[in-house]
Formats: sequence, C-alpha cells, structure tokens
Amino acid sequence: MIKVVFFDLDDTIVDTTRLAEMARRNAIENMVRHGLPVDFDTAYGELLELIKEYGSNFNRHFDYLLRRLEIPYDPKLVAAGVISYHNTKFAYLRTVRGVRRLLLELQKDGYRLGIITDGDPIKQWEKILRLELDPYFDEVLISDSLGVKKPHPRIFKRALRDIGVKPEEALMVGDRLYSDIYGAKNVGMTTIWFRYGKYADRELEYLDYADFTMNSLEELPGILRGLNLEESEAGPDKEIHAD
Amino acid sequence: MIKVVFFDLDDTIVDTTRLAEMARRNAIENMVRHGLPVDFDTAYGELLELIKEYGSNFNRHFDYLLRRLEIPYDPKLVAAGVISYHNTKFAYLRTVRGVRRLLLELQKDGYRLGIITDGDPIKQWEKILRLELDPYFDEVLISDSLGVKKPHPRIFKRALRDIGVKPEEALMVGDRLYSDIYGAKNVGMTTIWFRYGKYADRELEYLDYADFTMNSLEELPGILRGLNLEESEAGPDKEIHAD
Repeated sequence: MIKVVFFDLDDTIVDTTRLAEMARRNAIENMVRHGLPVDFDTAYGELLELIKEYGSNFNRHFDYLLRRLEIPYDPKLVAAGVISYHNTKFAYLRTVRGVRRLLLELQKDGYRLGIITDGDPIKQWEKILRLELDPYFDEVLISDSLGVKKPHPRIFKRALRDIGVKPEEALMVGDRLYSDIYGAKNVGMTTIWFRYGKYADRELEYLDYADFTMNSLEELPGILRGLNLEESEAGPDKEIHAD
Repeated sequence: MIKVVFFDLDDTIVDTTRLAEMARRNAIENMVRHGLPVDFDTAYGELLELIKEYGSNFNRHFDYLLRRLEIPYDPKLVAAGVISYHNTKFAYLRTVRGVRRLLLELQKDGYRLGIITDGDPIKQWEKILRLELDPYFDEVLISDSLGVKKPHPRIFKRALRDIGVKPEEALMVGDRLYSDIYGAKNVGMTTIWFRYGKYADRELEYLDYADFTMNSLEELPGILRGLNLEESEAGPDKEIHAD
C-alpha cells in the first residue's frame, strides 16, 4: 500500500532544463548587444562547454566565458549577461505542466508528499518558495544537508524515516534513471521513471530499476490506483484477515 | 570653462540607500513569514549591525544572520530572505528624482558626462544597465579597476585623462564629502556636494572642499551657468583677446 509519493525537483516538479536554456541564450544575446565582439553561436557554444566542465552551479560563468573567448575582462559585459540570466530565471520559472493539478489530486486522495533532491540548498529552496510549492509537501530533503548525493541510500532512508513509512509504502518519481530510480529501488521503494528533459534518453542501463515509465505526469494517479488495487486484490492484509 | 560633469553613482544618480533599506526590510519580513523564530525588529536590527561589520557587499548576510540569532542553519529561511531581497532590488531600482531630465539637459547644452564610482564593478554595471543609463555617459570609471578607492587621486586623474580635459574643465557631483568632494577638489576639479541619502549630515569636516552645496539635482544647471558666465565676465581668454 503506497502512502507517500516522493518527487525529484529538477525536470520533475520544476521545468529546469528549458528555463536554464532560455536564461543562457538571453544572457549571451544581451552580452552581444552590449558589445561582446563575437557572434551569438560562438559565444553560446563556448558557454555550454564551460558549463559542462565547471558545472551549472559555478558562479563565474560569464567571467570565465570572456577568458575562454580571449576578451579582456569587462564588468559591463559580465553585468549584461548576469542581468538577462536573472531576469529570465525570475520571469519564466515554471512547474512542469500539470504539477499543481497532480499534487492537489494526490493530497485529496490522502497521499503524503515529499521532495528528494540534490543541488545547492538555497537555490533549490528559492525555486520551491518562488513557485509557492512548499505547502504541498510534508518533507523536503536536499541531499547536501547529509553530505551525500543521490543515489546514495542514506538520502532515501532518511526521507523514509523522517516521514515515518516503510520503503514498500513509498513511491519515487524522477527523471534520472541513475540518481532517482536506481537510488530509490535500491532501498526498496517502488519507482516511476518520468521520461522528461535532458535525461529522457540517457542512463538507459538503469532502466530495469524502473517499475513504471511515464511520459506525462497525468499518468501518475492511474499507476497509483493500479498499484494499490493490485495489492488489495492479492488478498487482504493480516489485520483485516484476523478481523 | 566647465566641459565635463562627473557624477558619483550611489545616492547621486541611483537611489541606493532607499532601495537597500526596502530590500532588507522585505527580506526580513519574508524570513519571519517563513518561520524565522524571532520578531521583525530583533532580526532587522541584527541584520543592520551585521552589514555594518561585514560591509554591504558581503554575500552571506542571511546565512550569518541565522548564526548571530543562534538559529540552526536553514536554507529555506535563507532562500526566503534572498528572494525578497532580489525581488525588491529588481522591482524598485530607481534613479534619484530628476536624474534623466538633468542628464538630457546637460547633454543638450554640450557637456560631456561621466561616472566615477567605487563598488563592485559587476554590481555597479548592473545598476547602470538595468536603468539604461549607459547611453548618457562618455565615461564610466569604477575605482576597483585601478585597485584604489575614492578619494585616491589616481581615480580622478584617470577619469580626466580618459575623457581628455584639464581638472579646471571638470565638475564633480557627489553625496560624500570625503570620497567625492575632497577627492575631486584635491586634483583641482570644481565640486558640488549633493546633500542626499545617508551621508547628508556626515563627514562635515570636509565641507570646505565643496565649492557648492545643493539639495536637489535641479539646482545643477543654474550653478553651471553661473560658473561659466562668471568666467567669461572675468575677461575673455587669451585666444579671443589675441583675435
């Protein structure tokens, strides 16, 4: 009997990849508009490489972009990038389509909800609070607070303990087969792989750990009903039997 | 004959003190709303002390605020502060009343314009670009690029050299008697102290270095007319005399 549904945050609840791409494109566009002496495609390509090498939470992307393009340091150009990046991120931050309807429906059906995510804790909370998602969730666990990253079992076990359910009573929904699906299955949870965003066709070697695959969040309530129905058809549990 | 007018940025062109106060108040309010377990006045007072000690460009204000209040680290509370701080700064960034009208008028009268400011270069350019002030100015000099701060003479001399005028052809307008007025006078420029913002009643020991004092930017064109008229009444210069 599933009692709790855990979600990953980026590209499961929040439409992160699309937003980041828009923000980066707008940043480069504004840098070119303010005098960056290279064309958009060259600069954007170099930025993507830089992000791949230094990670998306590196906070000197535009600064280093100038170095890589061999352009003398110019705070005006960096500021032009920063402004458009932030404006885009604040103006276009969105949930994945259907998230709020789904969360309401799950709450109405009596499920408790949680978030299990990696990432910078302040940035993750910024997304949650800006979108006013916090009231939907009983538990928000950011792996950084335990000093580990998914799929480390500790983060999943801690989430289960905090919310007070056994692994077989919990479902994990996420877009990453390795971090989310392999990680959650590994501690005994039921898993749904949400095929969305930049990981939609990656890490397929972990596909076996997914109990279900869905292409849209709308499929989730049906899967849940199926799961709980299947279990009750398999026979009433002991307490009811003894009654 | 004054040919160039230099301005300080914060609390002369940009209404910085008022904005910072709003942003900090809104940040604390949002932290309290999200569960900060102390009252607004206590938290706000502690934040102001912290800023005094660590400086306004320290980027872990809300983080350190929790430490000072002896509250366990909570990224949700920090994010609540950061969100409201940024929202306020982006939504309420304004020039000091009358700036655009003044800059247009000065340009129409043939003056070239410059900014001489301290501060983090990217943050200063963010204000300038967000307000679209850059097209008004021939020169923006941020002291950080020379490794000095106002009133160091090097920053004023560099501005004069870049724009190609002698000190007696340049006017400096600023709200800080020590950094702006003493600094500019020291290299031979004419100075106007703009009595505005948190420095309106401070550093008065440097008042002697101000050639003029004004309480509103609207007074500037009149002062300039007086200065240039006075000089032409004092006698035509040599070239005209020889003509």
